[in-house]
Amino acid sequence: MKPVKVGICGLGTVGGGTFNVLKRNAEEITRRAGRTIEVVQVAARSNNPLCDTGDVPVTDDVFAVADNPDVDVVVELIGGYTVARELVLRAIENGKHVITANKALIAVYGNEIFAKAQEKGVMVGFEAAVAGGVPIIKAIREGLAANRINWLAGIINGTGNFILTEMREKGRTFEDVLKEAQERGYAEADPTFDVEGIDAAHKLTILASLAFGIPLQFEKAYTEGITQLTTEDVNYAEALGYRIKHLGVARKTEQGIELRVHPTLVPVEQLLANVNGVMNAVMVNGDAVGSTLYYGAGAGMEPTASAVVADIIDVARTLETEPGERVPALAFQANALSDYPVLPIEQCESAYYLRIKAQDHPGVLAQVATILSERGINIVSIMQKEAEEHDGLIPIILLTHRVVEARMIEAIAALEAVDSVINPVVRIRVEQLD
Amino acid sequence: MKPVKVGICGLGTVGGGTFNVLKRNAEEITRRAGRTIEVVQVAARSNNPLCDTGDVPVTDDVFAVADNPDVDVVVELIGGYTVARELVLRAIENGKHVITANKALIAVYGNEIFAKAQEKGVMVGFEAAVAGGVPIIKAIREGLAANRINWLAGIINGTGNFILTEMREKGRTFEDVLKEAQERGYAEADPTFDVEGIDAAHKLTILASLAFGIPLQFEKAYTEGITQLTTEDVNYAEALGYRIKHLGVARKTEQGIELRVHPTLVPVEQLLANVNGVMNAVMVNGDAVGSTLYYGAGAGMEPTASAVVADIIDVARTLETEPGERVPALAFQANALSDYPVLPIEQCESAYYLRIKAQDHPGVLAQVATILSERGINIVSIMQKEAEEHDGLIPIILLTHRVVEARMIEAIAALEAVDSVINPVVRIRVEQLD
Repeated sequence: MKPVKVGICGLGTVGGGTFNVLKRNAEEITRRAGRTIEVVQVAARSNNPLCDTGDVPVTDDVFAVADNPDVDVVVELIGGYTVARELVLRAIENGKHVITANKALIAVYGNEIFAKAQEKGVMVGFEAAVAGGVPIIKAIREGLAANRINWLAGIINGTGNFILTEMREKGRTFEDVLKEAQERGYAEADPTFDVEGIDAAHKLTILASLAFGIPLQFEKAYTEGITQLTTEDVNYAEALGYRIKHLGVARKTEQGIELRVHPTLVPVEQLLANVNGVMNAVMVNGDAVGSTLYYGAGAGMEPTASAVVADIIDVARTLETEPGERVPALAFQANALSDYPVLPIEQCESAYYLRIKAQDHPGVLAQVATILSERGINIVSIMQKEAEEHDGLIPIILLTHRVVEARMIEAIAALEAVDSVINPVVRIRVEQLD
Repeated sequence: MKPVKVGICGLGTVGGGTFNVLKRNAEEITRRAGRTIEVVQVAARSNNPLCDTGDVPVTDDVFAVADNPDVDVVVELIGGYTVARELVLRAIENGKHVITANKALIAVYGNEIFAKAQEKGVMVGFEAAVAGGVPIIKAIREGLAANRINWLAGIINGTGNFILTEMREKGRTFEDVLKEAQERGYAEADPTFDVEGIDAAHKLTILASLAFGIPLQFEKAYTEGITQLTTEDVNYAEALGYRIKHLGVARKTEQGIELRVHPTLVPVEQLLANVNGVMNAVMVNGDAVGSTLYYGAGAGMEPTASAVVADIIDVARTLETEPGERVPALAFQANALSDYPVLPIEQCESAYYLRIKAQDHPGVLAQVATILSERGINIVSIMQKEAEEHDGLIPIILLTHRVVEARMIEAIAALEAVDSVINPVVRIRVEQLD
């Protein structure tokens, strides 16, 4: 069969990795794909010392690749929204298949991109956009296609997980670990996307679309970062049998779809609680299969390239297939997406961990319990610690049953209005994942 | 698009589950597959009270389904080798696609079946044959297609894992837990396939073919069961920071491919060590992606049906695709399989846990250390316990570095020849999984 001709745009970490994996494993890949995969052009602004492009023509104009009549597949690895969007749309317009690792692009402009691809009958692969080399997109889109997905929950930002792991294992502060992560190159100079949960929300948006058959709605995702987490809460969580993880959670309820990224207490015996360092993992619960989990490196040169190349092989295997016979980009047929609503956070439901600091007056505990019970919030466990030496305040730590967020917001306002309670009350969501 | 017409042969646990999932999730499945999936015939010897077949015609002759001109896809869920093999070959001969959950059939007769399917241009799906609802076959075949797979290791028999979990958590004996597993229906009346590792070896054979592009060679798999394991060893392992799991391990070395099922010490911090009860998990290490893990229910009515139905959807999506454009059954193109040899166990390499019971004579420890060092076997750690009250014997427990099995066999023979050593010496393999 004739080879598939690939143009790679961007020769940074992932682009260099993709080039190298295609070259190193060429023989093995051909044995699988049934045809050779040939890189015929690369667009890069500068050399990547980890990647020797040899005889392959290199241009500094990404659009030259999108317009190159020899190219069957354009691999977009330049990142960002603006040029990447133009590049991808132009490549599709020119009838080329597109592979991208760009979660921001897919989460924000995916609907437009997939509509265009549908019109032109080309494939858009984005396995590398979520959880690096872990084939989580294929798992949801194809492997679990028999299921109604009930929920999914994932550790989908390696930087955040590295920070939380260090905080727990070594008792370090958030700021201290973040600084190290930046020095080691795990975190960007501007770490906002990682530590504020925006990157995780991009990925969660994509997973939720695949799982529930809804359009991409990044703007409706609720996002809460890990910058406010203290080692105090990490330690209390541990004492209660939980670990704090920064999770993306998507859940289908009778009212709509919950789409939320936030720190979460997870029972220590859950596999997700034991995913440490920069590793990623996603748990997916389906009505037939029950809970399944997918784990691996969520970033890095070759793990991400592994996913990019898997997508290229999918294109290679089905190059001459009728568009209607291919697996739809968002798992559901384009004309079968649902308008099931994404819920605002106030309508989402979870259990809660609360930490209240109060002056050591008699009756505080009773006041706290009353405020919660008046709002129908059931307490699972509560502990009041001795007054702390440095400020004489008593910490009250409690876990609640599941409750709608709006009611918890109300309860917290009432708690914070109690005279002897020091503001703010700390609240972290709890998920049992069962 | 026209519906896909399915005939289900066998209406036991998996057959009933498949029927129910197809019916319950029909709308969702059509939205994904792009066409409806219609069960047009069922072959069953008796009713399944958990499954109402309604208006669907039921026959007691499975071959009637294979010969039914209305059927596009034959789903073989009768189990066993003999009739199942005939049924599958006849269905393929008649130009029908085949889906099966039958690991024994695929492991033993897969080469014949895939050759026939290749000749006839039909698909054979067997996702349900390994790890129930976990899409591990798709992950290796497609998700990790960019990688040279280095090794994989899995807990792929739920019954065995349930027994080991109970032994560790509750200090129960093998016999005691097996009896409970049989009463609960986890284990068959004849538990040989589960506890002797034959079932796991069937599944490992399949995974190794997909990973390394070799024909199925079940007869070359080394198989060691869990019947000899004692709580004593489970506890010593725990004290050393390990858990004993019944693993299937396939590893590519410079000499060939290791294909072995045996009890294995796994470091307690590894996710695989924390997969408990009847759950399954497979770790796959590729040269680009590093280590990835896939976890979920390895058996049961609907988890297994989840995989069967996913395969049916794959067929539905590519029903009119040219055979050459489909994903090859064994991940590699049929004409690109390799004759890389499967190694006999004597040439396999692993680290070892040894437990030696000896009379409390001076110099025993030195003798043990000398015997190992003379054979180039390095000791990682060694502990000699106090003499046990009931027999006055001293247990010596040690962990070695990796060594070729042949050399360990020799060393154990030498150890057992020492006068003060009580036979047999217990040896369990150790895998770090990194």
